[in-house]
Amino acid sequence: MTKVGIVMGSDSDMPVMAKAADILEKLGVEYEMTIISAHREPDVFFEYAKSAESKGWKVIIAGAGMAAHLPGMCAAIFPMPVIGIPMHTTSLGGRDSLYSIVQMPSGIPVATVAINGGANAGLLAAKILATSDPELLQRLKDYSQELKEQVEAKAEKLAKVGYKEYTK
Amino acid sequence: MTKVGIVMGSDSDMPVMAKAADILEKLGVEYEMTIISAHREPDVFFEYAKSAESKGWKVIIAGAGMAAHLPGMCAAIFPMPVIGIPMHTTSLGGRDSLYSIVQMPSGIPVATVAINGGANAGLLAAKILATSDPELLQRLKDYSQELKEQVEAKAEKLAKVGYKEYTK
Amino acid sequence: MTKVGIVMGSDSDMPVMAKAADILEKLGVEYEMTIISAHREPDVFFEYAKSAESKGWKVIIAGAGMAAHLPGMCAAIFPMPVIGIPMHTTSLGGRDSLYSIVQMPSGIPVATVAINGGANAGLLAAKILATSDPELLQRLKDYSQELKEQVEAKAEKLAKVGYKEYTK
Amino acid sequence: MTKVGIVMGSDSDMPVMAKAADILEKLGVEYEMTIISAHREPDVFFEYAKSAESKGWKVIIAGAGMAAHLPGMCAAIFPMPVIGIPMHTTSLGGRDSLYSIVQMPSGIPVATVAINGGANAGLLAAKILATSDPELLQRLKDYSQELKEQVEAKAEKLAKVGYKEYTK
Amino acid sequence: MTKVGIVMGSDSDMPVMAKAADILEKLGVEYEMTIISAHREPDVFFEYAKSAESKGWKVIIAGAGMAAHLPGMCAAIFPMPVIGIPMHTTSLGGRDSLYSIVQMPSGIPVATVAINGGANAGLLAAKILATSDPELLQRLKDYSQELKEQVEAKAEKLAKVGYKEYTK
Amino acid sequence: MTKVGIVMGSDSDMPVMAKAADILEKLGVEYEMTIISAHREPDVFFEYAKSAESKGWKVIIAGAGMAAHLPGMCAAIFPMPVIGIPMHTTSLGGRDSLYSIVQMPSGIPVATVAINGGANAGLLAAKILATSDPELLQRLKDYSQELKEQVEAKAEKLAKVGYKEYTK
Amino acid sequence: MTKVGIVMGSDSDMPVMAKAADILEKLGVEYEMTIISAHREPDVFFEYAKSAESKGWKVIIAGAGMAAHLPGMCAAIFPMPVIGIPMHTTSLGGRDSLYSIVQMPSGIPVATVAINGGANAGLLAAKILATSDPELLQRLKDYSQELKEQVEAKAEKLAKVGYKEYTK
Amino acid sequence: MTKVGIVMGSDSDMPVMAKAADILEKLGVEYEMTIISAHREPDVFFEYAKSAESKGWKVIIAGAGMAAHLPGMCAAIFPMPVIGIPMHTTSLGGRDSLYSIVQMPSGIPVATVAINGGANAGLLAAKILATSDPELLQRLKDYSQELKEQVEAKAEKLAKVGYKEYTK
Repeated sequence: MTKVGIVMGSDSDMPVMAKAADILEKLGVEYEMTIISAHREPDVFFEYAKSAESKGWKVIIAGAGMAAHLPGMCAAIFPMPVIGIPMHTTSLGGRDSLYSIVQMPSGIPVATVAINGGANAGLLAAKILATSDPELLQRLKDYSQELKEQVEAKAEKLAKVGYKEYTK
Repeated sequence: MTKVGIVMGSDSDMPVMAKAADILEKLGVEYEMTIISAHREPDVFFEYAKSAESKGWKVIIAGAGMAAHLPGMCAAIFPMPVIGIPMHTTSLGGRDSLYSIVQMPSGIPVATVAINGGANAGLLAAKILATSDPELLQRLKDYSQELKEQVEAKAEKLAKVGYKEYTK
Repeated sequence: MTKVGIVMGSDSDMPVMAKAADILEKLGVEYEMTIISAHREPDVFFEYAKSAESKGWKVIIAGAGMAAHLPGMCAAIFPMPVIGIPMHTTSLGGRDSLYSIVQMPSGIPVATVAINGGANAGLLAAKILATSDPELLQRLKDYSQELKEQVEAKAEKLAKVGYKEYTK
Repeated sequence: MTKVGIVMGSDSDMPVMAKAADILEKLGVEYEMTIISAHREPDVFFEYAKSAESKGWKVIIAGAGMAAHLPGMCAAIFPMPVIGIPMHTTSLGGRDSLYSIVQMPSGIPVATVAINGGANAGLLAAKILATSDPELLQRLKDYSQELKEQVEAKAEKLAKVGYKEYTK
Repeated sequence: MTKVGIVMGSDSDMPVMAKAADILEKLGVEYEMTIISAHREPDVFFEYAKSAESKGWKVIIAGAGMAAHLPGMCAAIFPMPVIGIPMHTTSLGGRDSLYSIVQMPSGIPVATVAINGGANAGLLAAKILATSDPELLQRLKDYSQELKEQVEAKAEKLAKVGYKEYTK
Repeated sequence: MTKVGIVMGSDSDMPVMAKAADILEKLGVEYEMTIISAHREPDVFFEYAKSAESKGWKVIIAGAGMAAHLPGMCAAIFPMPVIGIPMHTTSLGGRDSLYSIVQMPSGIPVATVAINGGANAGLLAAKILATSDPELLQRLKDYSQELKEQVEAKAEKLAKVGYKEYTK
Repeated sequence: MTKVGIVMGSDSDMPVMAKAADILEKLGVEYEMTIISAHREPDVFFEYAKSAESKGWKVIIAGAGMAAHLPGMCAAIFPMPVIGIPMHTTSLGGRDSLYSIVQMPSGIPVATVAINGGANAGLLAAKILATSDPELLQRLKDYSQELKEQVEAKAEKLAKVGYKEYTK
Repeated sequence: MTKVGIVMGSDSDMPVMAKAADILEKLGVEYEMTIISAHREPDVFFEYAKSAESKGWKVIIAGAGMAAHLPGMCAAIFPMPVIGIPMHTTSLGGRDSLYSIVQMPSGIPVATVAINGGANAGLLAAKILATSDPELLQRLKDYSQELKEQVEAKAEKLAKVGYKEYTK
């Protein structure tokens, strides 16, 4: 059953949003991904945000860039957690997106991750669901173990070949 | 007849928004001022923005701070000019408000003025209306003349008393 | 049963962290609040973060300022959601705290809220728990309704008395 | 009849300014575009700004980069709306241009759009004229509808092919 | 004979500009100080900048805040050195003023000093004149010697009383 | 025997530099503190930096604000570690001091601590000396233990009285 | 006779410094250019700065990047004007260089130009010398006229071919 | 005998960390380099930091990017100097890494070098060891002499061939 909605303001955000989807697939969490612009189609957006709860969704992951209103407007309507991903921007490096998402007024939180942090948004959604799903929690722990082993393998390689060889 | 809507996200913004109203009164432009939070009452906000055109409004002045979504969401719905006033903020000095208002995506402009620039927002609204109202245009020119004379009076005083006396 | 841990790096952060606690009390969510410095007592910190899951906690809210490592280090150990609150700082306005908390590397998300965003951290924790607690979800909706009514009351007052009276 | 002047400080700004012209052409608004440096030919500039009203112009769109004085100096002379476009800059990303344009002192507003926001400047000029031109207003609404349909088409494509195919 | 013009955009800048005047008086350099707004009275400003050379001036010191155009516009007209003083601003700390003054395009330099650097602007004007005035150069050297002796006196006091006594 | 030189560019820096001295006194490390401006008395400064090694000093702690050159110029001359303390500044919050100290070119490191980080500069000097002084190392460990106990005492107080009482 | 010294901290700065030299050659001003690192060879630097006056120099142009101390240290020793050029930097875009050069303490001004503003530094040096050299002043006016004509030629081309052809 | 530990959070940091190793090799200082993520393997990290003193290490050089916790967490555990290298980042240019490393709270200093300042980190480690190792101090002086000679050689080349030839 779909528990996570993934929404982006523009299809140029898709490479970042895809990382959220990849993680959710890896962890066995069903999601639905779409493109909706709060600015270009506000009525479509409102309908989307209002119907999310009745579809059984528990978390929305919203990504947007520049004056990024999509995550905050989702949080104004959807009563459960909204995760915001600030997109990198050419002129301001993503500070504009970050401030537009994280600096929400009291009463309407958006759970903000790093600039272009698609994978972390997916993981955070899974961690939220894992508060009531012990099996998913176990899969999350297995994933953390994988990450740890990847670093250990790199450390071993470095110890073996030395940094001059490693960086070749 | 009311031609300008003034809207703010929080009553803490009122001292800045009042300057916009003061200028409009001085220039004889009718306006309607209210408080609406796009985040805390999205349905009230949508109704407000959708009905503005039918009420005969030509310009909306919207002020907001932090992750300031109100001006951009007005611009997504109202088809005529929206003027955005970024509020000063304690932590980021208003950069958060400024970026959230000015960095709008292509298709949805917000006419942004300076941080806390309430008076300039009122003037800009009047200038917009003056594109089809020669009498208002004349009042704007008279106002500019006043500003000029104020500076000239200060220059004269300085010439007369010297800077040491002036700054006492 | 306690489901939320609230931890801060210094007792100077308490006025902000208290707002998280106030919201949780209002929403009927049990929490435990303490002071632990990841820098000054790393072993105490590790023990705290490791034991959190076995105590039945589902969310940790961690606040810290400057080179704010506490939320990220909690997220490195605790497998469920960690919410980070960046503290305002005198020299950099909280940009240092914000970047140190939100810019987490892939694999270790921290759900970051606004600078000094204590109330929103408490709300976000409640929203996370509400993904599996319909009664809490209802209380959250009631709280949103309250916020909406507060804004409406202000708008009514403004409509009634005018902005000159309002700002006196 | 020409109602909009488009002016830039350097021909390196032309790719951005061209987007303003493109939009105006699409919306059937006549404009005149030129290159004038307020710094390198202040007398030419003054003459330009002073004569704009008598030529029947209603809006000036001015783009400039770095210490961008052109929009503000236009606004000091031309009594109707001036729209400023801050150019992206290599060293400061356009913050220098943005601050030099948006932070105007009280009395002299510049309607500022996003960094490199040429298209939005054109749209804003059209919206200003549309306050007294119902046919232009209708064309603006049609344009918004187009933008909406473009996003909807992308959402449909995503729903059909999935994000892995989409991003190939 | 007057060789230096001091001009500011607003009388709120006078405490900073006064420091430039104080230094020039101390060094025996004649100056003329006035208030002219390039934005509020562009024709007065143009006349001022154009007549400066014929009055025998060699340097203009111009101070301004926010979107600070006054120094750059002086430099566009006056053919000898223009020194710019960026004013501190509440919201952006003077970054806006600094960028608007220092980031001049190629061809039109403004000799920029620190934010609120009134005294250094006066000194720089004197140093410029000293390139052809050996007596003024000697007075500048004497002034530097004074500054040096002030620091030495402080160092001696510290050596004598210790820092605990010194900071009481 | 004196092993640490403490130098500041202005006596306005003394409250911050005093914290470095306080820590060194507490840890039993002898130091010598003075005021020298690299800008106002470059020859005095050169003599100071050149003679430091022959006086048996092992570390210099240098604090400065704005375009803070003192630490970097010490590091250009003194062959052992130089610790730089960036001073908080009104306009830029100390970013100017921080960048002027930390962004040293390759070949000339300055060990930079936080803005206004006087105590940490003193601690870092002691840690450097402790690399060859086991007794000092033990005193540093005792000091860390003290810091830990202070936090534990606060945590205990909070557990006992609750946050509402604590923040009264 | 050589009147201007051009000095840079690293030969990587030469493309920017070359623009200063190009302008001076064009205007017939003799200069001497060299590479000196205040950090890597402080004694060579001191000798350079101390001997500049006796060589008859009237202005020093100093360029440096990152923690750019060279211009400020020149200004601490040389009694006539020092012009500072902040170099663009990869990580901070040149903000580090700019702040390290422009934010000089009271008593020691550096005439700062834009990031990478080599040509403007050369022009400013010529303007300083032109305060006592009417022929050089005339050449500067001729140069300004050239700049003006270049812009006018571009405006004419645009008027003739239109922007679509122009930008091809 | 190994006296310096070099640790990085990710193998993407290796090109920068390699410069620290290169300098240490050149100066004859033994070191051990590895990869450990404080976030992905906190227990491995703790063991590493706790055992460093007993292995005889005197200095740790730690590099990390974004929310860079590795240097600060090393400093929380290892009682002797920790040198932090902030990594350049795509979105924020390394400001995030810099603030996360340099803005440490009182009691836990990290000796911070420039963004990507690998070579300076190696040099600083050697300077720290040189406080009790006269032979290493001599090698450091020889190295400084080399740097000086490299600059002198460039200055000579420039004097000989001129800047036009030099920059070809």
